[in-house]
Amino acid sequence: VKVSELGEFGLIARLADALASRDVAESSGRLVVGIGDDAAVWRADGVALIATTDTLVAGVHFLPGRTPWRDVGWKALVVNVSDVAAMGGTPELALVTLALETDTEVADIDQLYQGLGEAAQEFGVTVGGGDIVRGPAPSISVTLLGRAQVDEAGEPMLLRRDGAQPGDLIAVTGALGGSEGGLRVLRHGDQSEAAQPFVRRHLRPTARVQAGRAAIAAGLRCAIDVSDGLLQDLGHVCRASELGAVVWRDKLPIEAPLDALFGPDEALRCAVAGGEDYELLFTGSQEQIERVRREGSVPITVIGEMVIAQEHTPQLLDEHGREVAVLGRGWDHLRGS
Amino acid sequence: VKVSELGEFGLIARLADALASRDVAESSGRLVVGIGDDAAVWRADGVALIATTDTLVAGVHFLPGRTPWRDVGWKALVVNVSDVAAMGGTPELALVTLALETDTEVADIDQLYQGLGEAAQEFGVTVGGGDIVRGPAPSISVTLLGRAQVDEAGEPMLLRRDGAQPGDLIAVTGALGGSEGGLRVLRHGDQSEAAQPFVRRHLRPTARVQAGRAAIAAGLRCAIDVSDGLLQDLGHVCRASELGAVVWRDKLPIEAPLDALFGPDEALRCAVAGGEDYELLFTGSQEQIERVRREGSVPITVIGEMVIAQEHTPQLLDEHGREVAVLGRGWDHLRGS
Repeated sequence: VKVSELGEFGLIARLADALASRDVAESSGRLVVGIGDDAAVWRADGVALIATTDTLVAGVHFLPGRTPWRDVGWKALVVNVSDVAAMGGTPELALVTLALETDTEVADIDQLYQGLGEAAQEFGVTVGGGDIVRGPAPSISVTLLGRAQVDEAGEPMLLRRDGAQPGDLIAVTGALGGSEGGLRVLRHGDQSEAAQPFVRRHLRPTARVQAGRAAIAAGLRCAIDVSDGLLQDLGHVCRASELGAVVWRDKLPIEAPLDALFGPDEALRCAVAGGEDYELLFTGSQEQIERVRREGSVPITVIGEMVIAQEHTPQLLDEHGREVAVLGRGWDHLRGS
Repeated sequence: VKVSELGEFGLIARLADALASRDVAESSGRLVVGIGDDAAVWRADGVALIATTDTLVAGVHFLPGRTPWRDVGWKALVVNVSDVAAMGGTPELALVTLALETDTEVADIDQLYQGLGEAAQEFGVTVGGGDIVRGPAPSISVTLLGRAQVDEAGEPMLLRRDGAQPGDLIAVTGALGGSEGGLRVLRHGDQSEAAQPFVRRHLRPTARVQAGRAAIAAGLRCAIDVSDGLLQDLGHVCRASELGAVVWRDKLPIEAPLDALFGPDEALRCAVAGGEDYELLFTGSQEQIERVRREGSVPITVIGEMVIAQEHTPQLLDEHGREVAVLGRGWDHLRGS
């Protein structure tokens, strides 16, 4: 059996199984959240730490020659910041690993460092160290540590994938589909002015740290970041929370000009199956979501509802309540689709 | 300029420079040790965290087809444990990133997980999560978090590269050169019985966590792990501490049978320039070193002395006090020699 047949998520489950029986710290109560959420959470005395790691590989996650190195540096940190935001935490310390071909230009790496530094500045992160190795293709791997707020009893307050309740509304920050739109523009070399905001959305994503913190303050306890595609990421929430979900197509905050560039069907596909928007999806009551909306400066849109269902997968519904089929539901890093 | 011309250490220095002016947390006193030691150290309220990351790439750090996957898993964690040990800390939580070709056999990855689990068990580490990506060559990257002990004033007690004092003795744990010997055996396919312990030394290194903690208890404040070659790693201590060092060739605890296998010159070269022994080198007074020796079960050998010198590099001396030239002084991951 090849890893491409098992897929990324199959392989992660297998790792969790392989290590479960050996787990030392979990049994002593230090590991609060292990394999299978946006980030791991770990208690060290009174401190609740959030730890996450993400890697960008040339040719897989960015297009050498088309993606500026400075943007690769920015994105490598921001995708990790997004994972910490999706737990409701605050990012603090990053370690950076570069795998480089020996004939890489130092000037390119200087650009990479610059983008990394810009993101570190933007999100208040310190780069504390890392590792540099020789590798067959350039890649940058960032591990980010952050902190969760703790309640009066000293327990960490977290946005977890398994925290959804039946009847919770589903809300997302910002707009969807722009990053996938930008990737398509980059691939096809579209130089039109209308296309450029999407390129920027793809190359320079932001992360919703303030919204995540506001969600914690509003009492919300379930979120995920939309990194692999809305339906796939919502699917993780469904399985972890053992619920179904309905998403109302006509409520989706699809980036408006996507429709004009690609037509309505492809715009929808970008929004529900395209990856890397790095918006937050959270679930909770109308009142809680209102509180997050009042706290923050980012638009928040209610797009659906968590429901009791046999199948723990999301359904996309049209205005008549009929299911809408979408080709491709998200990204698996080993299967590549 | 290519990165191979600048080298790994030049590139790390450049990263430190690029990010220095942007450093947010260091200025507020949270980052205790940044880029340029075995690990970063970071204060979060009363907790002193140690964070380090190391990557093994197929074809660079292990030999596909000759290195069992189970040993790759073991080693990927242990090299990080060694960095935490070299700061005097205790390892706790690991995140694991795998870059895999899509046609990798799942059975191989199961073996990798098994070795990883064995090391996690051995050193009391919890694997809390990670990332799996597609890549052009298999690699495994581990980020390890640990904790430093804090003194009564709440300050972390650490073994730092810049902690050496003039007149300090230099001591190492265990024996040197065995890992390089094992790598040579593996490369040449030597199946003799005499060669096998070295292969094991190379594939299944240990990490000196207890010795590191004992060094802290004994009042020592300077150490590094011997991962890139004794003279090169001692050179890092020299530069960080702004001192020279003399190493007495005849005191070196060279793995005894290396001499028989490779002859005395190559045995010496393995011991002072070969990498990956993962022994600890520390500096301090005779009395402090005696205390570490009494505390632990690992052999400790005094091999030299820190001295005031113009050049902040180590000198290897023979029994007449004459300098011994050794071809190749250690490993640079980008220059490859």
